[in-house]
Amino acid sequence: MKEEKGITIKKEKDMPEWYSQVCLKSGLADYGPVKGTMIIKPLGYAVWEKIQNYFNSVMKKRKVQNAYYPMFIPESFFKKEAEHAKGFSPEVAWVESKNKSEEKLAIRPTSETIIYDAYSKWIRSWRDLPLKTNQWCNIVRWEVSDCKLFLRSREFLWQEGHCAYETEEECEKENSEILDEYEKLCKNLLALPLLKGEKTEKERFAGAKKTNTIEAFMPDGKALQCGTVHNLGQNFAKSFNINYLDKNEKIQIPWQSSWGISTRLIGATVMTHSDDKGLILPPAIAPVQIIIIPILFKGKETKEILKKAKEIKNKLKSFEAELDDRTEYSPGWKFAEYEMKGIPIRLELGPNDLKKNQVVLVRRDKNEKKEIKISQLNEKIKFELEDMQKSLYEKAKKFLDSSIKKASNWNEFLSVIKNRQIALANFCGDPECEDYIKEKSGGASSRLITDKKTKGKCVYCNKPSNLLVYFSKSY
Amino acid sequence: MKEEKGITIKKEKDMPEWYSQVCLKSGLADYGPVKGTMIIKPLGYAVWEKIQNYFNSVMKKRKVQNAYYPMFIPESFFKKEAEHAKGFSPEVAWVESKNKSEEKLAIRPTSETIIYDAYSKWIRSWRDLPLKTNQWCNIVRWEVSDCKLFLRSREFLWQEGHCAYETEEECEKENSEILDEYEKLCKNLLALPLLKGEKTEKERFAGAKKTNTIEAFMPDGKALQCGTVHNLGQNFAKSFNINYLDKNEKIQIPWQSSWGISTRLIGATVMTHSDDKGLILPPAIAPVQIIIIPILFKGKETKEILKKAKEIKNKLKSFEAELDDRTEYSPGWKFAEYEMKGIPIRLELGPNDLKKNQVVLVRRDKNEKKEIKISQLNEKIKFELEDMQKSLYEKAKKFLDSSIKKASNWNEFLSVIKNRQIALANFCGDPECEDYIKEKSGGASSRLITDKKTKGKCVYCNKPSNLLVYFSKSY
Repeated sequence: MKEEKGITIKKEKDMPEWYSQVCLKSGLADYGPVKGTMIIKPLGYAVWEKIQNYFNSVMKKRKVQNAYYPMFIPESFFKKEAEHAKGFSPEVAWVESKNKSEEKLAIRPTSETIIYDAYSKWIRSWRDLPLKTNQWCNIVRWEVSDCKLFLRSREFLWQEGHCAYETEEECEKENSEILDEYEKLCKNLLALPLLKGEKTEKERFAGAKKTNTIEAFMPDGKALQCGTVHNLGQNFAKSFNINYLDKNEKIQIPWQSSWGISTRLIGATVMTHSDDKGLILPPAIAPVQIIIIPILFKGKETKEILKKAKEIKNKLKSFEAELDDRTEYSPGWKFAEYEMKGIPIRLELGPNDLKKNQVVLVRRDKNEKKEIKISQLNEKIKFELEDMQKSLYEKAKKFLDSSIKKASNWNEFLSVIKNRQIALANFCGDPECEDYIKEKSGGASSRLITDKKTKGKCVYCNKPSNLLVYFSKSY
Repeated sequence: MKEEKGITIKKEKDMPEWYSQVCLKSGLADYGPVKGTMIIKPLGYAVWEKIQNYFNSVMKKRKVQNAYYPMFIPESFFKKEAEHAKGFSPEVAWVESKNKSEEKLAIRPTSETIIYDAYSKWIRSWRDLPLKTNQWCNIVRWEVSDCKLFLRSREFLWQEGHCAYETEEECEKENSEILDEYEKLCKNLLALPLLKGEKTEKERFAGAKKTNTIEAFMPDGKALQCGTVHNLGQNFAKSFNINYLDKNEKIQIPWQSSWGISTRLIGATVMTHSDDKGLILPPAIAPVQIIIIPILFKGKETKEILKKAKEIKNKLKSFEAELDDRTEYSPGWKFAEYEMKGIPIRLELGPNDLKKNQVVLVRRDKNEKKEIKISQLNEKIKFELEDMQKSLYEKAKKFLDSSIKKASNWNEFLSVIKNRQIALANFCGDPECEDYIKEKSGGASSRLITDKKTKGKCVYCNKPSNLLVYFSKSY
């Protein structure tokens, strides 16, 4: 039953295997017994709770209210919005019918239809608008059978915000602000740099007028969609009969949006920052930021070291600090353990440190030991945590920036994609042309439109084009 | 499209209809489009979040860690624990198979089996114990087709804690402490008095060695199970092959427990405290505790009143206070609205109050107006909120206590049940006898054992009995 404790493969050698080992061995997650499913273990869930808390406070300021909608969606709801139905039908899991007279029920792959059925009952007057609710829930996409922990699984957790407004301007404005909030969350909590912009027609959410996205770029050369906001126009409102009386008692149709982020963000964070020793968690998202490890030798100093270690823990109240004073594990074992778990700062306290009234500080992302006077501990730790957050972000930003290559023609495009980088190219916007690009390039898809006024020719079909678009492989 | 705004039926006249109206018209919940399902609207969900926050801090102190387990459970898992399978089989919803070679999957009616399959991989050594995780998730019990908002629905939200220990003593001790914590939550947040004790063999959780429960008693004469803790003994550990090496390197089997509370608690709170004007929320659970309503007349005082109202709101930072300064609704409309929504305290501020530097305070559970000097507002509000919490609890406690009647023989028992009260009676403990009691009394079930050393004869079969048991109708 002995397992290799450390990560047995290098990140640059076999990233999927390395990634899976980091998730499993750090205690972030485990595979579920059913194909395609995962268990989010306490460390992973604590990271998710930090994301939830942060974003709940963002939503509260915007008066978006949390609610909970049923997971079971009648089949007929999907049929009301034709594009939506088409887009989601391959992914839907259905409940086995116990009673042939009951309608077939889907397990939610997304909740637009069931929420807008409720909105059609709740929205009557301009006084009911804007109506903004959000739910944190589980989502099922059945087509996934090969689980990539956090990145792709049959069931995952997310939040989905659903807003209805009187005007398209309000809808567009808040959508763009929400996308900015997502970007801030990724930077401030997860230290993830992103590309941000509009999706092409092909990659748009099924049923939406417009989808905007934030995309991270993974070290294995694949983009990862991290969050999207959809301008649904009046498409769903018309299909679900949502309307209201305006101030002049005239019937109007509202404008709608939906937007979401998911547990996938955890995967992006892990893959971006971690190394061959295991997980690296950015300090802002780490459930435990500091681990204090007393170095105990036999002798009377043991008591004093333990006492001092507890004092230090109490001193660090403004951080998330923990003390591991278990005696059944050696300091060396603990060092490896907390490196694996990605804890940003380790403080060591041995007999020598005790004498010198200091601790030894080791930052997870650096290979150096610093001796810190206990009297200066709080300010030094504050500095190191902030510096680590910044430094992880900057390292990832450098990688992202250096991965983007301009592709002026199809040959250049192919070579950028072959190098597992991001091609920046003019594109006609035609979904059919995009299908060809994907096929002929071995899997590159458009990530987002970064500019709409760049005159040129489509990198594949040579038709005139104003769209400047990022292309890459993706998760 | 005009709807009657107020509750159109009296609580004592038709409690199910009154209850449903309170939930719908206060904005706590709505019916879902699928039979048996419900939508938890923002007010209801905010109450649930308060319960979650409170109980998360209880669990954190006990080192119970949140996690998330898959919703889909392989059919074979249910078969491993025979009693458990038997107990849950009628309630399980299954996923429609897309591939005949894949195993049949249940949608979780409870998660013991899938969690203990994971525990069997995670538990290796005594160092891994105790292992304590919890999940907040949705649960499906398919047999429900007639949705009673919060009280019975096909899908609901809950928390389920799952612990594994080295010894039965530890298991029993923490179980009993968790039940005490549930009781405290019900009292301190929800103002719900309870009965507490062990379930009879018949009412025990399927697969458990022992189940303990807290039960509230609703004003319509039906008990409502509010939370349970199960001592699972080693039953599941044996079925799922969970074992560990103890300090002497010997293989041992752990002792397990599971425990849960659900969104049902919201239903118990609503039904217990609310009245013919709508919802009454105990102050400790009310998402908004105070609503400030300016009484505006035309004239120059409007500005001053609004300014003062804002000042008052800012003064009340230690409470959850909101100001409704919308001009499209009249003060009278607002009074009725916030009474319906159960907000504990209303503050009115009109021209006369402005002059006298006072507000008028109206408590939701009383029919009186108090003039309060603004300088004394914080202390008076603190007093009124605490007094209201206490007074709601005491009123409910009085009702509970006065509903319990000793039944020394079968005729007395029948008359107590007929009066929709709680019969306290000796009972032999035999599940078969309990079936008879339920059948012959028109639906009374045992709620819990309150004493195990009361010598007497079973109220139904007359066999010698030491168990003193509460019986009543129930939800």
